[in-house]
Order: sequence, then structure tokens, then C-alpha cells
Amino acid sequence: MLEKLKEEVLAANLELAKRGLVNHTWGNVSGIDREKELIIIKPSGIPYSQLTIESLSVLDMDGNQIEGNLKPSSDAPTHLVIYKAFKEIGGIVHTHSPWATSWAQACKGIPPLGAAHAEYFYGNIPCTRKLNEREIKGQCEAETGKVIVETLSGINPLHMPAVLVSNHGPFTWGKTPMDAVNIADVLEAVAKIAYRTYALTPAIRPIDSNLLEKNFAKMHEDFKPSI
Amino acid sequence: MLEKLKEEVLAANLELAKRGLVNHTWGNVSGIDREKELIIIKPSGIPYSQLTIESLSVLDMDGNQIEGNLKPSSDAPTHLVIYKAFKEIGGIVHTHSPWATSWAQACKGIPPLGAAHAEYFYGNIPCTRKLNEREIKGQCEAETGKVIVETLSGINPLHMPAVLVSNHGPFTWGKTPMDAVNIADVLEAVAKIAYRTYALTPAIRPIDSNLLEKNFAKMHEDFKPSI
Amino acid sequence: MLEKLKEEVLAANLELAKRGLVNHTWGNVSGIDREKELIIIKPSGIPYSQLTIESLSVLDMDGNQIEGNLKPSSDAPTHLVIYKAFKEIGGIVHTHSPWATSWAQACKGIPPLGAAHAEYFYGNIPCTRKLNEREIKGQCEAETGKVIVETLSGINPLHMPAVLVSNHGPFTWGKTPMDAVNIADVLEAVAKIAYRTYALTPAIRPIDSNLLEKNFAKMHEDFKPSI
Amino acid sequence: MLEKLKEEVLAANLELAKRGLVNHTWGNVSGIDREKELIIIKPSGIPYSQLTIESLSVLDMDGNQIEGNLKPSSDAPTHLVIYKAFKEIGGIVHTHSPWATSWAQACKGIPPLGAAHAEYFYGNIPCTRKLNEREIKGQCEAETGKVIVETLSGINPLHMPAVLVSNHGPFTWGKTPMDAVNIADVLEAVAKIAYRTYALTPAIRPIDSNLLEKNFAKMHEDFKPSI
Repeated sequence: MLEKLKEEVLAANLELAKRGLVNHTWGNVSGIDREKELIIIKPSGIPYSQLTIESLSVLDMDGNQIEGNLKPSSDAPTHLVIYKAFKEIGGIVHTHSPWATSWAQACKGIPPLGAAHAEYFYGNIPCTRKLNEREIKGQCEAETGKVIVETLSGINPLHMPAVLVSNHGPFTWGKTPMDAVNIADVLEAVAKIAYRTYALTPAIRPIDSNLLEKNFAKMHEDFKPSI
Repeated sequence: MLEKLKEEVLAANLELAKRGLVNHTWGNVSGIDREKELIIIKPSGIPYSQLTIESLSVLDMDGNQIEGNLKPSSDAPTHLVIYKAFKEIGGIVHTHSPWATSWAQACKGIPPLGAAHAEYFYGNIPCTRKLNEREIKGQCEAETGKVIVETLSGINPLHMPAVLVSNHGPFTWGKTPMDAVNIADVLEAVAKIAYRTYALTPAIRPIDSNLLEKNFAKMHEDFKPSI
Repeated sequence: MLEKLKEEVLAANLELAKRGLVNHTWGNVSGIDREKELIIIKPSGIPYSQLTIESLSVLDMDGNQIEGNLKPSSDAPTHLVIYKAFKEIGGIVHTHSPWATSWAQACKGIPPLGAAHAEYFYGNIPCTRKLNEREIKGQCEAETGKVIVETLSGINPLHMPAVLVSNHGPFTWGKTPMDAVNIADVLEAVAKIAYRTYALTPAIRPIDSNLLEKNFAKMHEDFKPSI
Repeated sequence: MLEKLKEEVLAANLELAKRGLVNHTWGNVSGIDREKELIIIKPSGIPYSQLTIESLSVLDMDGNQIEGNLKPSSDAPTHLVIYKAFKEIGGIVHTHSPWATSWAQACKGIPPLGAAHAEYFYGNIPCTRKLNEREIKGQCEAETGKVIVETLSGINPLHMPAVLVSNHGPFTWGKTPMDAVNIADVLEAVAKIAYRTYALTPAIRPIDSNLLEKNFAKMHEDFKPSI
């Protein structure tokens, strides 16, 4: 069942490790079959070098495990909440990649400062509000999903395919699991360059909205700029 | 047609990726045949690992595609404007290399702070002014070329073989495509060391003009220092 | 004698080098046989590429060399003091890994700023007080061990498996030598991200104690959060 | 002639490139035969990948080329001045390694902030004063050597085996060419960690002189601490 999607999810997880975005057993990639309403996700605590098709976990939209002998990633409830809210997406990535995580720990979004940012992210990459005590002590991972959805409220998730979870790290998404890996990789580069830009010019302002639109439209044929 | 130049442009594009100056499909190298008035440039959206002689785009000086089945790089109009203005040069490189791009996003030129800079760049590596609304909404890539030429006004482009496009990233050039790649690589090192120099001594001043001349002359036999 | 532990200590030393946490002959890993009361440690001044089972030093708890023709690491007295105080641990690592050493040289502990930290370290990773003149001029390495134990006073060493020795560098530990290497690797990542977090938001506060507990408990089944 | 020393100088130059301390044709290693009063140095403008025994330049102490068809490194006059002043040394390295060069461009010495520094450098790694106009316009490379010697005045060069030339980069030395390469490598790590230490604690003070002595003595058996 879901053999093609399993291969995609496996390949995306391996690519995440290959690009140096994850260490140890950290991070995870998932993919969704919208028709069958099932997601496939990396198992918990398994090094990337030992991942196989068989080791992947298949879950229904309530989080019940349908296939796989290993425990799914503890972040699975976050993925499920995001998939339910963002119908347009087919893959999600979570990492602790160091540059993006630095912004997340600093509780700051990343403003658009250049063309590289503007081609992938239409505006400020937002950082979530902090979870409150009830949310932390409750279903923390599902609450993380909810605060991500709250943060993206009113935004097309394919126009802002990343979020920074405050005191934690980034989540990214895309039409496919591999698209979400690509976004995670671009986000890390954007976060690095933005950090250094602020160090050089602390009072730097976000780029002109016309330049943002022009660059974003170049890479997103469906996007209609206001001009 | 232009087989030798095609090989040079292909080799220079591959070298750009090998030196870690570009990721994904970002960046591009072009070369020009001054006699035939044709340029060769990387196609748009092709990963460096898939580049071949056949995939390269050949354009005339008005931007008409003469050879190649793929769309030329969207930066081709910038390259064309630069080639028309700087008759001395034979190759151009554009990257989003992270250190140089940080300066470009910070809208700051890089002052000469040491011998490594002075051997390759005769003075401050300039940053362009920002494009205005008309320029952004119009032929943005050609306008980028024009503002580059405006910024280098009165300067020998072989004595200042790089520019930072504000809110975007660096362009470099040289007598050949591979020379332009070498300059892009040196620029990235110079941008990194300058960033850290300012962090250590925020009030640091550019080097003495005599030292600038001495070092630049050492690497440029045609250069006549004022001494 | 102690063949299995020797293999573990050798493998852990090689892994330390493989992960880029040590250069030259710097750093060392040791392991302890609690029953026989013997420790095994890297010899002094030997490059990691030349380490063999035979080259390892076996010491009793008074520091007498029981096996091995080479001089044991000059840090052996520090290891011995730590093993005597922390009965729960089976392996110790010392490195000059650059990010953690920067905090140690800055004489600052690393506060918990995110989930990555909280999963491994239950609170602030402490920095020792400076050694006084008597301690430096006396048995400096043993005194370093004593000040580490003093710093961890009242703390479960498996809940805080790392310390920064001021003006020096990090020591980490775990149930096994390889666990201690893993902690050294995580510490380096945590130190890097914390450095950049402070650069982005100098006034950042440690994470909420509930979030600290929740994340730590997720990775430590024996840990009982207060909630 | 000098076959053994040529092999040492070649190996040291190749090691310099292998450790990532030099790019392009930058940097150089030399060695001296004190009996024959001849030095061997890397030729100018040759990539490290093309270096051979035959390509090396042999010079007498007045800088006359005795062997080799290629132009010797333009830094040879600096090396000669240093060899004449520091009779104890047998090899010299010059690089533009990025961390050490950042301190040199910032015109700042590197104070001893930790054990890693103290084991190799007995105190502040000094930065030279700037060259004046007469020195720059005259024999700039020989004047660089003189200002290095002036900076080390009264210091045992084997106790302070490195200097930062202001607005330029580091020179290091040792008993052999390979020792000088090792020092260049340690210097780069020390410069990196010191940079970050200051970023974390701008008011940090150099380490206690007792700790400096203790650590330096550990690695230098001939050194007699004052205690």
C-alpha cells in the first residue's frame, strides 16, 4: 500500500540527511495521500542511515498507526494538524537546522532582505507565539501544530512554505515531500544570510514590496502580483 | 559554432558549483565572442549536475536566442547590458554566495581592509543604489545591468571586477569566464574576512592608499601606480 | 583484560575524531569498569589515526598505570576525580570543540534556549569558577576535576551531562564512552545555536520551566517532571 | 642538493593546502639549511596541486636564486629577514587563513583566553604596527620582515611562534617547516575561538599568568616557569 509515496518519503528523509540539515535521529519528513487520508512519517529515534521502506510509519488522520512496527516520530501530531489545515500541501519537514533554529530560539521572524528570500517566501517568515502553560502540559505536539496554523492564518501556505516555532525550530512544507526538503534547505541559507545582513546593518529594512512581488512571481507562475 | 567558448562556459559553470559558490539551480556564468557578437549563458532552472554543451543558450546582443532548446537564464538581460558597457571583459558570473550576498543585502560596499582585497580589487567594492519603482516594475533584469554600469561609472572594470547589487547579490567579471569564477571565489573570501574584521574593530579604516596601490600593482602588470 | 571496554573506548575516541570534535592530538575519551575499579583512557600526544587497542592506558583509581606502554592523557587525573564523584557514569569525554570552548573561554554557562538543549540538558549547562593560584600551581588537573564536581553539586550528573571548564573547554559524560561522545557532539551544536540566538536577541530569556521539563522527560524515561 | 629539506618543504606546502589554510596560489612555506645558509621556498603563482620538488626555489641569504626555474614567492624577502633574526627556527609559513587574517586586518593581537592558546603561544599573539609610507614604497616585503622582527623584540621566537602583520595576515614559524604548518593550523583555531569569546563576553580578560605558565610549560619541556 502507498508504495510510491513510501519511496518518496524515504528519499526525502535521506536527502534531508545528505544536505546536512539533520544530525543524529533528529528531524523528520512526512508525506500524505489525500485520497486515502493516510500519512507516512519517519519512525522515532532511528538514525537516517538505517531507514528503510519497511521502517516507515503509516498513520490515519487521527494518528492511529496503520502500518509499521516502529513508533512514529513524536512530532507526528504536529504534522497531522498541519495537513488538516493546509489542504494544498503534500509533504512536511521538521529540522533543528542551526541557522533557522537560531532565529526560532531568538523568537524572531525572518524579514525579506533580498532576492533569494523573495523567490521562495512571500514576505516575513513568521515565528509562532510561545505556547502557554496549558498547551505545554497538554498535548504539546498537537498544540504546536495549532499554533503554526494560527500563525499562518489568512496566508496561502504555498506562498509562505515555512514557519519558525519559537524556542524550537523550523517546519517547512510543499506540494511533495521533496519540495518540503528543498524549502528547508533554502530556508537555512536564507536564515544564514539574514543573520549576517543584520550584523552588518542592524537598521536594515525589508525589501521594497514591488521587488518582493517581482521576485516571487518569477518563481511562482500561479501568483498574481498586484501590479 | 563557438565550440571553444561553449566548453569554456560549461567548465566555468561546473567550477562555480564545485567551489561551493552556488546551490540548487542558482547562479550562472556567461561568456562572449566579441567578434561574432554572441554570448553563451547557462540555461534557466537546470541543476549544475545536468549541464551539457548542448544545454547552453546562445544569444545575440539583443537577447534573441540563436541556439539551444532551453530558456536562457533569466539574468541574461543583465549580462547583456554589462557586456555592452564593459568592452574589456569576456566573462560574467552571478551568484548568491552567502558572504558577498550578506553585504549586498546590507546595502554596503566592501572597503579594502587588507592585502588579499588589494591584490584583486582596486578600492572599495561598490554596492549599487536600490532600483526605483519604475525600474522594478519594468525590465527589472536589464535595469539591474544599467545600475551596475552606473555604479562603475569612470572605473576600469578590470580594476574593479565585482559589484554588489543591493538587496540581491554579487556580479563579477574578467577577461574569460573562468577568470570571472576566480574573482567570485576571491570575493567570497574577502567578504567573509571583511565581515569579521568589522566585528573585531568596528571603527577600522580602509588601508593606506599606498599599500592599496602597491598590492594591486603586484598582481596587475598593466597597472601604473601613481608613485 | 577489559577487552570489551577497550574496544568501546577505542571506538569512542575514533568517533570523536570522525565527528570533527577534535584535531591534532587534542581531546580524549575514557571508560570505567566499576567492578574492577579501573579506567581506560587515550594515551597522551598520539594522533587519533594511530590509536590502537594496545596503545590505550589502563589506570587504577589512584592513577597508577596498570597496562600500556604510553603515557596516559595528562587529563587522566581530572577523569579520575569525576568518576569517583559521579557513580552513575561510565564514560567521560574532553574536547576543545570550538563552539563549546568559546563559551568556556567567555566564562559563561549556556542557558536552555530551545528544545534541542532541553532534550539533553536539564537546565543551564554550567561553567566552573576559575581555579585560584594555589589550585593552578598544585595538581592542576585533579583540581580541575574537583571544581567540576563542586559545580555540579546537588545535580544528577545524568541530567546535566556536561560542564564548561572556565578558560579551558568542555567535559561531557554518560553511561558509556559512546554516550559521552554523543553528548559532546550535541553540546557543540547547542553551543553554536545559543551563540547565534544571543546575537539575534541579546535579551532572550531561558525557556519556560514547563517546556524544559516536557522536553527533557520525552528523552529520559526515568525523569519525573513535577507536573 | 638539499634533497631532504626539499622534500620537507614540499610536504609542508602540500599539508598547508590539505588542511584548508590556503586557496588558489596564496600562501607559502619555506625551510632553511643553517649550515649551507640556503633557504627553499614555494615558487610564485603556482597552484599547490602542481608543486613538485623541481619547482621549488633555492635562494641564498641575499635572495639570489641558486636553483629552480620559477620565480620564488614574492614573500621571500620577508622570510629571509625573519631567518636572519631568529636563529632558532627552521621553517616559516605565510597564509591568508581567514580567522587569523581577520585579526590582522583588525590590527589587533590575540590575547591568551584559554588553555588551547596557552599550550602553544606564551602570551598575546602580537600584531605589527602599520608600515609607513617610506616602507611601503620601498622594499615592502623586506620591510614587512623588519617590522615582524621589531614586534618580537626581546621575545624567544619559539615561545611566540606567530605574528599578525597588520592589514595583511599571519606568519608562523617553528623548528621545521612542518612545525610551522602545525602552528599555522593551531593559530587559525585559536583565532576563531578568541573571536567568538569576545562576542560572548566583550570585557573578557586574558587568563591568569599562572595558568598561562602552567599550560605552556606542559607542552614545552625547555620552558622554565617562574614558579
